[in-house]
Amino acid sequence: MFLQLSTWPEVEAYLKTSTACLIPIGSTEQHGPNGFIGTDALCPQLLAKGIAEETGCLVAPTLSIGMAQHHLGFAGSITLRPTTLIAVVQDVVNSLARHGFDRFYFLNGHGGNIASVTAAFSEIYAESSLGTADSNRQPLMCKLKNWWDVPSVGAISKRRFGGAEGSHATCSEVSLTYYGWPEHQKRVPLSPEIAPTGPIYDAADYRRRFPDGRIGSNPALASVEAGEELYKAAVKELSADYLGFARSGEQPL
Amino acid sequence: MFLQLSTWPEVEAYLKTSTACLIPIGSTEQHGPNGFIGTDALCPQLLAKGIAEETGCLVAPTLSIGMAQHHLGFAGSITLRPTTLIAVVQDVVNSLARHGFDRFYFLNGHGGNIASVTAAFSEIYAESSLGTADSNRQPLMCKLKNWWDVPSVGAISKRRFGGAEGSHATCSEVSLTYYGWPEHQKRVPLSPEIAPTGPIYDAADYRRRFPDGRIGSNPALASVEAGEELYKAAVKELSADYLGFARSGEQPL
Amino acid sequence: MFLQLSTWPEVEAYLKTSTACLIPIGSTEQHGPNGFIGTDALCPQLLAKGIAEETGCLVAPTLSIGMAQHHLGFAGSITLRPTTLIAVVQDVVNSLARHGFDRFYFLNGHGGNIASVTAAFSEIYAESSLGTADSNRQPLMCKLKNWWDVPSVGAISKRRFGGAEGSHATCSEVSLTYYGWPEHQKRVPLSPEIAPTGPIYDAADYRRRFPDGRIGSNPALASVEAGEELYKAAVKELSADYLGFARSGEQPL
Amino acid sequence: MFLQLSTWPEVEAYLKTSTACLIPIGSTEQHGPNGFIGTDALCPQLLAKGIAEETGCLVAPTLSIGMAQHHLGFAGSITLRPTTLIAVVQDVVNSLARHGFDRFYFLNGHGGNIASVTAAFSEIYAESSLGTADSNRQPLMCKLKNWWDVPSVGAISKRRFGGAEGSHATCSEVSLTYYGWPEHQKRVPLSPEIAPTGPIYDAADYRRRFPDGRIGSNPALASVEAGEELYKAAVKELSADYLGFARSGEQPL
Amino acid sequence: MFLQLSTWPEVEAYLKTSTACLIPIGSTEQHGPNGFIGTDALCPQLLAKGIAEETGCLVAPTLSIGMAQHHLGFAGSITLRPTTLIAVVQDVVNSLARHGFDRFYFLNGHGGNIASVTAAFSEIYAESSLGTADSNRQPLMCKLKNWWDVPSVGAISKRRFGGAEGSHATCSEVSLTYYGWPEHQKRVPLSPEIAPTGPIYDAADYRRRFPDGRIGSNPALASVEAGEELYKAAVKELSADYLGFARSGEQPL
Amino acid sequence: MFLQLSTWPEVEAYLKTSTACLIPIGSTEQHGPNGFIGTDALCPQLLAKGIAEETGCLVAPTLSIGMAQHHLGFAGSITLRPTTLIAVVQDVVNSLARHGFDRFYFLNGHGGNIASVTAAFSEIYAESSLGTADSNRQPLMCKLKNWWDVPSVGAISKRRFGGAEGSHATCSEVSLTYYGWPEHQKRVPLSPEIAPTGPIYDAADYRRRFPDGRIGSNPALASVEAGEELYKAAVKELSADYLGFARSGEQPL
Repeated sequence: MFLQLSTWPEVEAYLKTSTACLIPIGSTEQHGPNGFIGTDALCPQLLAKGIAEETGCLVAPTLSIGMAQHHLGFAGSITLRPTTLIAVVQDVVNSLARHGFDRFYFLNGHGGNIASVTAAFSEIYAESSLGTADSNRQPLMCKLKNWWDVPSVGAISKRRFGGAEGSHATCSEVSLTYYGWPEHQKRVPLSPEIAPTGPIYDAADYRRRFPDGRIGSNPALASVEAGEELYKAAVKELSADYLGFARSGEQPL
Repeated sequence: MFLQLSTWPEVEAYLKTSTACLIPIGSTEQHGPNGFIGTDALCPQLLAKGIAEETGCLVAPTLSIGMAQHHLGFAGSITLRPTTLIAVVQDVVNSLARHGFDRFYFLNGHGGNIASVTAAFSEIYAESSLGTADSNRQPLMCKLKNWWDVPSVGAISKRRFGGAEGSHATCSEVSLTYYGWPEHQKRVPLSPEIAPTGPIYDAADYRRRFPDGRIGSNPALASVEAGEELYKAAVKELSADYLGFARSGEQPL
Repeated sequence: MFLQLSTWPEVEAYLKTSTACLIPIGSTEQHGPNGFIGTDALCPQLLAKGIAEETGCLVAPTLSIGMAQHHLGFAGSITLRPTTLIAVVQDVVNSLARHGFDRFYFLNGHGGNIASVTAAFSEIYAESSLGTADSNRQPLMCKLKNWWDVPSVGAISKRRFGGAEGSHATCSEVSLTYYGWPEHQKRVPLSPEIAPTGPIYDAADYRRRFPDGRIGSNPALASVEAGEELYKAAVKELSADYLGFARSGEQPL
Repeated sequence: MFLQLSTWPEVEAYLKTSTACLIPIGSTEQHGPNGFIGTDALCPQLLAKGIAEETGCLVAPTLSIGMAQHHLGFAGSITLRPTTLIAVVQDVVNSLARHGFDRFYFLNGHGGNIASVTAAFSEIYAESSLGTADSNRQPLMCKLKNWWDVPSVGAISKRRFGGAEGSHATCSEVSLTYYGWPEHQKRVPLSPEIAPTGPIYDAADYRRRFPDGRIGSNPALASVEAGEELYKAAVKELSADYLGFARSGEQPL
Repeated sequence: MFLQLSTWPEVEAYLKTSTACLIPIGSTEQHGPNGFIGTDALCPQLLAKGIAEETGCLVAPTLSIGMAQHHLGFAGSITLRPTTLIAVVQDVVNSLARHGFDRFYFLNGHGGNIASVTAAFSEIYAESSLGTADSNRQPLMCKLKNWWDVPSVGAISKRRFGGAEGSHATCSEVSLTYYGWPEHQKRVPLSPEIAPTGPIYDAADYRRRFPDGRIGSNPALASVEAGEELYKAAVKELSADYLGFARSGEQPL
Repeated sequence: MFLQLSTWPEVEAYLKTSTACLIPIGSTEQHGPNGFIGTDALCPQLLAKGIAEETGCLVAPTLSIGMAQHHLGFAGSITLRPTTLIAVVQDVVNSLARHGFDRFYFLNGHGGNIASVTAAFSEIYAESSLGTADSNRQPLMCKLKNWWDVPSVGAISKRRFGGAEGSHATCSEVSLTYYGWPEHQKRVPLSPEIAPTGPIYDAADYRRRFPDGRIGSNPALASVEAGEELYKAAVKELSADYLGFARSGEQPL
């Protein structure tokens, strides 16, 4: 069930069955010469569709722009400052909390979001802890789940790509987007085959360390077929994880 | 050309032909008993596709969540506070400006965004005017265009819906989304046929004034057919408007 | 009744008769070679006096500094950033709300304030909608009224100035201030007679487009006599508009 | 010379003679049963006129609303939060700095402003010290001067009012406003004659400690005559103080 | 009793005897050629130990970094912007208020903190006055006490150092730190003997006015012996002052 | 070398040998019935002393208050909101960067800080990436190192405490503080022996899940002897890690 394609009475009905929802969150940033700039948003958005089919969960609109300051050296990359992203997550959660939602499952497609989104959760909890939240706000539970953090995805990646998986513009994420948007696959030469690795600081530094944008990966190995395998495995495992979070017998204490 | 489905070298190439881009911006808020909660984001997103086909413009990811505090009395509505939305627009524009973009055409689907987005433009310009912008930032031009603010849309609406068009959950916007997502059309009874009108204050007040969420409209009249007519007319006129903004001989002074 | 010249027991007494007040808001920015830098604040301040005499309304101190980033290319102009102006309006309204005021009529003298002040209203309403307002705060109603947005002012302007009225440093506003402060009238040559028109971006761009600060106007036509006619007509219409807002039978819902 | 009644070319001419200006800053807050709510803004505004006549200095519009949270227990009082006031002072100074002003003399009428305005100065200087100011911004010098902090005012107060001067709604400030606005003098009984004294915390505490708003004063002693004496003495001394600041041979280092 | 070395049950027990606590606050900034960069934090930290022994008060961790923008021209100096410091003080007080503390005695070691910390107190009180504080928050009382603002310290300084005391890197504060950390005493030549005096603006200006960082002092006169005398006198007087604040019969009104 | 006990000329000299520094960062929060509230700040502070002896690094004052909203249900706990902590880290780094420091090694004692401090690093880098940093600011490198994240600490913990180590109020951290402050050791009964485990949300939830504050640990096993072993191992490994970061041949790119 997609929030964008639902009506408010339908959401009201949904809330009688569940107070959890899924919020895809990604980024808009370069993914090397053959990866989509939207990769990190498109992956959780695609998987969310599968998870919704599997679990019936409500899917909020994808938060497509994340914290990507380090990619600003490459055309097309967009960042929110961490403090902006924190405010966005706060507002989204507080809006939905007003309707009775109390479990927020952020399906994340971008490592660079983890710190800011986790900090946002603390900012939201701090409203309760410091007593500045809406006095009617129920206790809230937020969870950030990286789509690739399920065993089957790791296993497929290891089997198919081994040391060429990398950590940015990875074979897996590029495969997943090729599976979702096969007509947009790019075939361009990559050199060197496997990109360098290293730490991340600011945008100028990133561009010099990783001249074509990739980190440690050879996404020339990406394929629709691998994407399909990843999709099916991830949907299955993430659906279970979502339900574990959403249906947990325990209420927020 | 969609930013999310492009690579950074493709954006770099695009920038040699144009420094303008189109950013759909909408809202996630109730649209009455038969309108999608995503209406205000889906309309500019749909039209952006047509405008991109027509003009070749680069389309950024849709900013799907806008300023909708007055709709929070209805399940599923999400708002950003005005100051959050200002920060988001600032960050998006400043990120893209770094790559050489200097003309930002925000295609807007939500009246409630106008003040905050316009204020955001001033906040961005003020960075230049007060000297706190990146010293390498070129002069920027931002434009907010409501998709319904073209003569042909007004004419079609008047001819087809007359006094039943309304100002929220309008026949036109519901038609446009039905055209875009026909399988999700909702057929539910509306009572009264034409919703009341009045001013907008906070969410509790809104809910009491407009009990089913609509303002002045009878979107039972919405249809795929009307949506198609609106789509074609709007794409044509907005494409011309976009090009007038993007190709204008004059540089930002 | 002027807040600045009243005592707190007098305000307490006033609140037994009305919970509305009028807040003049303007700007401090160049108005061309012969217009006062204070024009946009002085106009609503002057009119507020007339409206107070007519209606007995309480008039708060004029907010003399507004959002004028685009005028910073001309000496003496002062701006608040939009986010600063939002905070100011928030604090003023929340302070007065504590005493029982619930209807805030902002009489505005500056087009550049509209977006930020309207966004401020939404920020204030959002405190209710998101539940972060003072839990004792009653529902609030805010209205922004541009002093020139009454039919009689338009009619006088059209009759007297026609195409020379313009949109910044207009004949009407300069006339109104000359009527209020006749001893400060400036007589300086203007060239060209009618200033150019165009869009507004940042301060450097504005200065280049509109070299002497005016937009589309020939305020050499301004006169004390025209100012007096405008004053009387505007006070009459705005008084009625104020009372319609303040005395409306309906309570904030 | 009043900024509000000047044109931008006049300000440009002024800047060739001086880069200093005077900014009256006050508050809008209860001043007991017979003092004006505007006392703290009206005093510096009135004195600024005299100082301008004496020195030819440029006077910016009065910042009429200050930090007055502790007065919110009395009808009509308005506060800016300290952080809002800091932002306002920052924006005003940075706007004027753009035109070449580098010496800002804030003539203050409210003790409650001192901390926030002084903090604002540090926030402004910190922009230079941390390198985030406009790279074209010259070194700035800001001074906060309480109008009552000149020896002659102290002497007159002591001679005329002695122990009845008090520290809020003082005999001196009420006298000064009675001199400026004699037709608005209030004659109401005060009980006890001399108000209690004590520390200041929040608004509810203030109201309980100081039930009619005064602290330590008996402003029934206020008079137009005393106001005139204070006015003349203060204008003379403050003019000299202003010139010492503005004309100082030394440039900001 | 030091908060850092206590357990939460011990604090819970303490709260049954007192709802006051002491918070040392200082700065990390140059103190001339022979003064410690930590002087302003170390002084109140040292004295807090003595006051705790004397009074049994609970001592929070020292806030070692304050508002020191003007010292940034000297290596090692660190500043918080005033608005950052305000947020820190707000969070500390609101955290402790949640546990039942309602009297906060900030023992201050740095003149540059006074404005920002006092503004922070107003920001905190404004939460009550504007109704945005935790609705369970009791009335709060905050006090800022400069350690040197007790008569005995002034007397010792005058007797020992006379006109060489100065106002930054003073003989007294350097003595006090030498007493606390005698093994770190520095013996370096100072020239001129007594440093110049003058106003404070930004960091570059400060460095030019006060080339070695001192203002008006000759801290070569500092000694462990003087520090000990100052320590004993200050602890005694400050202990009494603390108890007067903490034990005051009156509750926050 | 401790910044607080150094003079500015000494820091200037240090900068000729190294542009790196170490910043201990912790928290002030309950650590169960027998752990110090200051545990998370005292551990990195203690280790920093050892690392400084080993490496000669400059140690900044400990940032003793961190992000601990979830502990506010226990007396004495203090939190900064994530956005406050971000501002603090930003100001500290930007201050030190002005003097030439470009490598910032944050030695962290609190898991709850990781997200906010990492987000702060991105906020700082974003100033470079978006062009709003001081134009003279060199490229910066920040690293967050949890003191327990070195192999030897894990090995000692496993050998000594096994499954009783836990994740809050751990045997290791309590041991380390007992080693540092042996006279403050607490011997109190703990029940159950090993505390429960679970997820972390807001303060009320935390208190209900973990009634005495511990998570998964039995710190009755903590000892001075274990603390000493941990201290020596950690100092050694962290010194090497610090030097690897500080002396790295490569410059920030």
